[in-house]
Amino acid sequence: MKRILSGIQPSGQLHIGNYFGMMKTMISNMENADLYVFIVDLHALTSVHDRDRLRQGTLEAAADFLALGLDPDRCTFWVQSDVPEVCELMWVLSTMTPMGLLERCHSYKDKVAKGISPSHGLFSYPVLMAADILLFQAEIVPVGKDQKQHLEVTRDIAIKFNNTYGETFVLPEPAISESTAIVPGVDGQKMSKSYGNTIPIFLDDKPLRKRVMAIQTDSTPVEDPKDPEKCNLFALFKLFAPEDRLKEVHDLYVNGGAAYGYIKQELFELIRDYFGEARARKKELLENQDYLREVLAKGAEKARAKAVQTLDLVRDRVGLTY
Amino acid sequence: MKRILSGIQPSGQLHIGNYFGMMKTMISNMENADLYVFIVDLHALTSVHDRDRLRQGTLEAAADFLALGLDPDRCTFWVQSDVPEVCELMWVLSTMTPMGLLERCHSYKDKVAKGISPSHGLFSYPVLMAADILLFQAEIVPVGKDQKQHLEVTRDIAIKFNNTYGETFVLPEPAISESTAIVPGVDGQKMSKSYGNTIPIFLDDKPLRKRVMAIQTDSTPVEDPKDPEKCNLFALFKLFAPEDRLKEVHDLYVNGGAAYGYIKQELFELIRDYFGEARARKKELLENQDYLREVLAKGAEKARAKAVQTLDLVRDRVGLTY
Repeated sequence: MKRILSGIQPSGQLHIGNYFGMMKTMISNMENADLYVFIVDLHALTSVHDRDRLRQGTLEAAADFLALGLDPDRCTFWVQSDVPEVCELMWVLSTMTPMGLLERCHSYKDKVAKGISPSHGLFSYPVLMAADILLFQAEIVPVGKDQKQHLEVTRDIAIKFNNTYGETFVLPEPAISESTAIVPGVDGQKMSKSYGNTIPIFLDDKPLRKRVMAIQTDSTPVEDPKDPEKCNLFALFKLFAPEDRLKEVHDLYVNGGAAYGYIKQELFELIRDYFGEARARKKELLENQDYLREVLAKGAEKARAKAVQTLDLVRDRVGLTY
Repeated sequence: MKRILSGIQPSGQLHIGNYFGMMKTMISNMENADLYVFIVDLHALTSVHDRDRLRQGTLEAAADFLALGLDPDRCTFWVQSDVPEVCELMWVLSTMTPMGLLERCHSYKDKVAKGISPSHGLFSYPVLMAADILLFQAEIVPVGKDQKQHLEVTRDIAIKFNNTYGETFVLPEPAISESTAIVPGVDGQKMSKSYGNTIPIFLDDKPLRKRVMAIQTDSTPVEDPKDPEKCNLFALFKLFAPEDRLKEVHDLYVNGGAAYGYIKQELFELIRDYFGEARARKKELLENQDYLREVLAKGAEKARAKAVQTLDLVRDRVGLTY
């Protein structure tokens, strides 16, 4: 079984795009991999300077994943800062990281170009990410397009370290997740918090319905045929509808008779039901934070056992033992 | 009692310039301050990529200081990497460090200009130094001219953190040590490892004598008057000779009769005797490495108690608690 590692941002309201773009596959990795999942609160400090928001975000992210089916007994699930060994490894890796490698990173340059004031944390983010991955000797790291270069940086650092001090780190491979199909937002653009076009997963019924009703469609009359592949609403419907019903609606599009209003109502019900159980479970978890903390503490213990093993090896290799 | 903090490089052979330039004062701080002294093995990784050299250097540095009179019961004395909390604090501080602050650091630019290949460790060195200082809430940090800017960086980061998250860190003050009088090397330039002009402290008698005999002097005949203030040999003699003997030799210089060869022989004997006891103690310590490790383990425990206190506060302030 391969070891797969994924980090989760502790910020913000989960939406359908997150779920189908990344979470669903990640959670399903429990079945066929040695899955490591962690909430990246240390990384989050590069953008969140609000104590309560970070605390709340961390707990919510934990509740989100557990509610959606992540089984902490079938994977290793923890909060990044609970395994501080990652910071020590980061420093050691820093001394093996040519500045040019970081200076070439697009993500940093893009953020600065967008007006984010450049902190050293933002700049050195890829080294912490390398430490995240190498500390657990991860073999596979699912990455989006924007993180692919950072995984290259991780590999470059690992290769340099191995060449200098002898074989120490597994070289991780990127996995471009199959199901990172783009999920459209209510306006038809890619669903993204920054576009304000999301359908959050854990909304209550009333605001959820309102959100679904806001999906933009064209003004073709009901009885006219329409191209389902060009319809934003259909793309979302496809994610939730059972196959036979999907076929029926597809035919309505092609032959005429698809009424957007009715389809939206149906989609609302599908979404509500799809996440219904998870929504209830999340509520329960947030009402029982002691349990949540207990789960995370156990996860940290498991993760730490592996981390200490790697770090002991690293300390010995570089001479931080006397 | 003020808390004074000093780091020691674990690299290389101690020489007379180190001793009178820094160590003597540092050790004497035991008397009148809450002294924190640590061996900076993590920093050393920015230049030492040789496991055995780093290990050996760390043990030697510990033995040097203990041999020269540092009393581990009257200060806190540890090896940097034994208190890994410093790396975690470094990351948190990184997220509070504007890139411009680091880009302006002369020390990094100078090193790169000298052809040292720029690693991220070298670049982010001042942030680790800030973590070293702030983790222990040090009030006074003795610094050489080359480190003064780094202490400014530390203060800037601390101020930014305090402004963002509320009063957390003590702002450290630099102390330009009084006795950083320049000690000349055998060639008359400042004594420095990089000039190859040092007189090491812990040489055996024969090579020590050879080294002292190599001190460059002019060719003024013995009976001619000479200016002691312009004489390299006299400057070194001054560091070791008792006052009355110093006056006699001073008079020989001024009135004629100072024979360089004899003065060198006398200086050799003075140095040998000055460090004689320390030399024997160092040998003993290196032959009893278990004791040395025990002292360092106890020191780490003491340092860690303080470190954990600060880090717990920091974690709470920024929201790395949930």
